[in-house]
Amino acid sequence: MTKTLNVLAICGSLRAKSTNRGMLLWAQAHAPKGMKIHLADLLDVPFYNADLAEKPAAVSRLLNDFAQADALILGCPEYNYSLAPALKNALDWASREPDNYLLRGKAVAIMGAAGGMGSSRAQYHLRQVCVYLDLHPLNKPEVFANAFSGAFDNEGHLIDSKIQENIKQQLLALAAWQQKLQP
Amino acid sequence: MTKTLNVLAICGSLRAKSTNRGMLLWAQAHAPKGMKIHLADLLDVPFYNADLAEKPAAVSRLLNDFAQADALILGCPEYNYSLAPALKNALDWASREPDNYLLRGKAVAIMGAAGGMGSSRAQYHLRQVCVYLDLHPLNKPEVFANAFSGAFDNEGHLIDSKIQENIKQQLLALAAWQQKLQP
Amino acid sequence: MTKTLNVLAICGSLRAKSTNRGMLLWAQAHAPKGMKIHLADLLDVPFYNADLAEKPAAVSRLLNDFAQADALILGCPEYNYSLAPALKNALDWASREPDNYLLRGKAVAIMGAAGGMGSSRAQYHLRQVCVYLDLHPLNKPEVFANAFSGAFDNEGHLIDSKIQENIKQQLLALAAWQQKLQP
Amino acid sequence: MTKTLNVLAICGSLRAKSTNRGMLLWAQAHAPKGMKIHLADLLDVPFYNADLAEKPAAVSRLLNDFAQADALILGCPEYNYSLAPALKNALDWASREPDNYLLRGKAVAIMGAAGGMGSSRAQYHLRQVCVYLDLHPLNKPEVFANAFSGAFDNEGHLIDSKIQENIKQQLLALAAWQQKLQP
Repeated sequence: MTKTLNVLAICGSLRAKSTNRGMLLWAQAHAPKGMKIHLADLLDVPFYNADLAEKPAAVSRLLNDFAQADALILGCPEYNYSLAPALKNALDWASREPDNYLLRGKAVAIMGAAGGMGSSRAQYHLRQVCVYLDLHPLNKPEVFANAFSGAFDNEGHLIDSKIQENIKQQLLALAAWQQKLQP
Repeated sequence: MTKTLNVLAICGSLRAKSTNRGMLLWAQAHAPKGMKIHLADLLDVPFYNADLAEKPAAVSRLLNDFAQADALILGCPEYNYSLAPALKNALDWASREPDNYLLRGKAVAIMGAAGGMGSSRAQYHLRQVCVYLDLHPLNKPEVFANAFSGAFDNEGHLIDSKIQENIKQQLLALAAWQQKLQP
Repeated sequence: MTKTLNVLAICGSLRAKSTNRGMLLWAQAHAPKGMKIHLADLLDVPFYNADLAEKPAAVSRLLNDFAQADALILGCPEYNYSLAPALKNALDWASREPDNYLLRGKAVAIMGAAGGMGSSRAQYHLRQVCVYLDLHPLNKPEVFANAFSGAFDNEGHLIDSKIQENIKQQLLALAAWQQKLQP
Repeated sequence: MTKTLNVLAICGSLRAKSTNRGMLLWAQAHAPKGMKIHLADLLDVPFYNADLAEKPAAVSRLLNDFAQADALILGCPEYNYSLAPALKNALDWASREPDNYLLRGKAVAIMGAAGGMGSSRAQYHLRQVCVYLDLHPLNKPEVFANAFSGAFDNEGHLIDSKIQENIKQQLLALAAWQQKLQP
């Protein structure tokens, strides 16, 4: 009997019908056997601020999500050629725990939807962040979705079979990569 | 009689005693003749979210600050090798106004304090953001401060004379650059 | 009578039928009135090496091209998600002259052809280089061409009318930008 | 009896007394037990050019070096805020072989000497290149050397004990990382 692979998915867009959320929801519904994907809720997570006297409840819940996760899926929109603040902020909060124990050494899959470049400009910024956080993003496959070319319906659901297949391959690669990193 | 140059300064750190804020406060107190620097208040500015029914008051105030500004100073911390979410979020909000009229064509000075690299890793991400926003950051002088080498006192005040001089030169360059861009 | 605007175009690909060269040749043939575009020849320019006792003839010729130029067009391929060495090397040579006088303050237009991202990953690296070199790349329009979608014929000629129009707009923007920077 | 770990070291600077070469030579002389470091010779490797009818001898030798290597050390100078063309070009040549078999999946250590930022600006560009090449650079430790602060003697020898120790730790990390990636 093999252990379940617990994966935390984080969506950088807070919008309910976000296409990036749509990708993560599709991934969640089609996770490979043995992988369980939990989607973080960032709506009440405030900006990191060292002056805050105590951790807000939404932050404690988020940090607990990280603690449960063997690997991460980062849903990475592109805002003005770089990262969505909500995604970056979730990682910043997690990075403040002792010895970086919530993040260090974990396998990561990155996917994103945006205009013609499919959020690639943001994704390479995210990869630089992963260096410091000691996260290990997959090199391949990368997942870039054009949000404005019919790949999503009006509710943000992913309906493009090629991107669906791309995500499916990425999830399999994530499971194999996690296994290699933490056998 | 020459027109006052109105500059909006934005600090990516929300902490009251932030070293990045310390740099902006020093700049504000030592602005060259003819330049007036206003420091934005981001404490109540929420994450951009397209689902929000109306603009929160703190956002309206921030957008008004941008409207008044001829040029910008961006106080750019480095969190985990990239941008502070609060700074990026302020720019994201401003970018959503019609025709990008709050930002396009404006001159920008970037300064930051961080560890040994002086926030440079974040600053180059910020420069990529400026391309899309049609902002024009100064090439030189760049201002990188080491936050942990005695350049700041315990209250976050900038006390290093070399960095002070560096900022002074940057403010003069900003005034000249703004004049060239919008004569 | 207005002065001719002399523009130096540099192609990062050394291949004769390069699509990036095709873009520059199209630009050269369709330069706006008053602009003259000269295409640099990099074939015999060696790698920069401080140990070289004297400048090779091809380097001297290249540096002279830079000296004649009021502005630059950089034809930027994408090799393995970053810059083509030949383009970077041409800029490195130019940067070694006293006071950076061959480059500082000049206006730059960047265009490139590559796979699906249209060389954007390389172009943002190039923009970071421009910061140090004190070059001023246009923010807009950016020119990204997909090299594998019928935009070029087998000889590398640019035949896509939308990209042609995009380049035409970029050349006009370059002339206006140069005029603003060096009136 | 364990297999020798064959490591190929590539120096982006062609200068004989280069500080980046000095770091690699120090690493070579102090490789941990079981690791053998070979330093590539790039002096006669020309720019990649698809028009070249056949591979120059220096390229064939370089590709053979890659074929022998279990892992790579990249000596990464910073030229004008980005990569040294000679280093990028060596990787570009290697990337053209079928199925990327010379590079894919290999472990990489990056070190570099430059001005105050220790070549970090170039190193993050190099990391983006590694994504496409399916190389796996170490997250930690990063090795940044200031080339102008007494860490090197006039011959480019590394004489700073702190950086020496940093390299020693990186080599051990490289061996462990390679073992994890290709057990």
